[in-house]
Amino acid sequence: MKEKKIALVAGGAGFIGSHLCARLLEQGWDVLCLDNMLTARPGNLRALTNHPGFSFVRADITDPLPDEVVEQADRIERIYNLACAASPPHYQSDPEHTMLTNVVGTDRLLRLAEQSGARFLLTSTSEVYGDPEQHPQREDYRGWVNCTGPRACYDEGKRAAEAMAFDFGRLQRAEVRVARIFNTYGPHMDPRDGRVVSNLICQALEGQEITIYGDGSQTRSFCYVSDLVDGLIRLMEAKDVSLTPVNLGNPEEYTITQLLEQVRALVPTTAEVVYHPLPVDDPRRRRPDIGRARALLGWAPRVPLAAGLAETVRWFAEEMQRMQLLELPVQETRLSA
Amino acid sequence: MKEKKIALVAGGAGFIGSHLCARLLEQGWDVLCLDNMLTARPGNLRALTNHPGFSFVRADITDPLPDEVVEQADRIERIYNLACAASPPHYQSDPEHTMLTNVVGTDRLLRLAEQSGARFLLTSTSEVYGDPEQHPQREDYRGWVNCTGPRACYDEGKRAAEAMAFDFGRLQRAEVRVARIFNTYGPHMDPRDGRVVSNLICQALEGQEITIYGDGSQTRSFCYVSDLVDGLIRLMEAKDVSLTPVNLGNPEEYTITQLLEQVRALVPTTAEVVYHPLPVDDPRRRRPDIGRARALLGWAPRVPLAAGLAETVRWFAEEMQRMQLLELPVQETRLSA
Repeated sequence: MKEKKIALVAGGAGFIGSHLCARLLEQGWDVLCLDNMLTARPGNLRALTNHPGFSFVRADITDPLPDEVVEQADRIERIYNLACAASPPHYQSDPEHTMLTNVVGTDRLLRLAEQSGARFLLTSTSEVYGDPEQHPQREDYRGWVNCTGPRACYDEGKRAAEAMAFDFGRLQRAEVRVARIFNTYGPHMDPRDGRVVSNLICQALEGQEITIYGDGSQTRSFCYVSDLVDGLIRLMEAKDVSLTPVNLGNPEEYTITQLLEQVRALVPTTAEVVYHPLPVDDPRRRRPDIGRARALLGWAPRVPLAAGLAETVRWFAEEMQRMQLLELPVQETRLSA
Repeated sequence: MKEKKIALVAGGAGFIGSHLCARLLEQGWDVLCLDNMLTARPGNLRALTNHPGFSFVRADITDPLPDEVVEQADRIERIYNLACAASPPHYQSDPEHTMLTNVVGTDRLLRLAEQSGARFLLTSTSEVYGDPEQHPQREDYRGWVNCTGPRACYDEGKRAAEAMAFDFGRLQRAEVRVARIFNTYGPHMDPRDGRVVSNLICQALEGQEITIYGDGSQTRSFCYVSDLVDGLIRLMEAKDVSLTPVNLGNPEEYTITQLLEQVRALVPTTAEVVYHPLPVDDPRRRRPDIGRARALLGWAPRVPLAAGLAETVRWFAEEMQRMQLLELPVQETRLSA
């Protein structure tokens, strides 16, 4: 048992990270989860903490890696870097930290990969395409990102992290993978992270007025989290994709208004819809071209939006009940914690 | 004399930095020059080291700032960040260090600006526009940068540094200025930095065969260094430009072939011209729109290419003589030092 190889998951207590940890444990890996718990939710690890293969280290990857990690370098064979706040209100609350997480944090994990001989996967983002002029977005599209605006700490931070990963790959310092993740949803989302799926579901469940930014005609594609995790692991384990970013997301495109209709079909609500102005630099359209993931990984999303939303609504309803039982009002945002 | 305010120049021993230090000393500033001397040329400081207002600290801004700097924080009123290798062979020789110089180094200097209340100027670059689809490039053009390629450590590093500077500005942690510098030339260039002006002049002076990358039809705009330094100081001292990048460069556009003709007019050579393939991601066209600099700073370049090239050729010829006297062969590149 002690000789088992370790998969390190930075940001492993977050929304996607916690599902990835669970899947890796199922596949027989020992999982070493790193998280600074700034935007992660402790409850995400509930199902994992008693697993004998699971260990957790509270750490911020902008700091030197803790001894518990460095001492186990020889056993680390996979490093998944999911560490970074991903919703605009979170990542904009401390833009300097967001940038350093992406650049300094990624650099530390790449150096750990070099030292341990582990394969490294960076979770990049569709945000590297900015407000895209090309639709759907292919990996060779260079993007339309405003590097001076309030989203730049995240968008440019991820672009810089990609640049570093590919440099480590080109110089054969580490074997690297880069996934560009498009909108993902499912259980373990933060009820108050300000993103559209959680916003609409929570407002509907609570009977509050529904907030739409813009006129609702902007589009997004929504990938259910189990599909996304499957894609991440396939990408990590695939051969010969080390100098190529790979889009992971669901190519089915919905307007925000269509998404709202699907949510309303699951959670009947008569609450009013209130329209707010679009935030600065908010992209109007986003849809992945997943031709490369299909070809290289044999991957495509399988969970239809209606089924994924039903699972998500069920989880949010349970979570709200749990939070009420614990007298932790769901209205409390993680930002003020 | 002791009460004089300090202008800190990171990268102050480099090509542009050394001219900036000289100009600031002329204007009555005490100048604190920081440089790691990796790509700088010690000779660039020859004329400055005996000046009573000049001090030099050898330091790499990716490391914590040295005590000599931090102790003087109260006196520092201006921080110019010019620290980063700027020619592709230099910045690609250690891409990780290039990225960290731009991100970690800029962060350290921004924090020093916050602590000292100094105004901060980042020298960004026309490289943030990548291989531009818009011509000439205006500051609101978002660029066409490949964030996965071998130039990304520099291009994306500078974009990330801009993002950080504007975040410090937006959050009122420091008053910031961002200059996007286009091709600049003049005395103190590295004879072997691999850039087109120094390449052509040195090859012509040495009677070597002339190297052209591509077919010579790609264009550049060349700004003489005294004009550029004038623009940097104007930008630093201007009011109300803190959340706006400003292009600094010469809008006169020349093909590489035209540049070669101008050099040949100054240095007659019968050497053969040899054409090499264009490097990866090499931009085909580059010309600044300097409308913003004209409007906000009342700035425009004044030195014509022929006059600037004549000065530069004269300096290179002298420099080669000096290096031969010192028995330092000019063929030795800085990279191998």
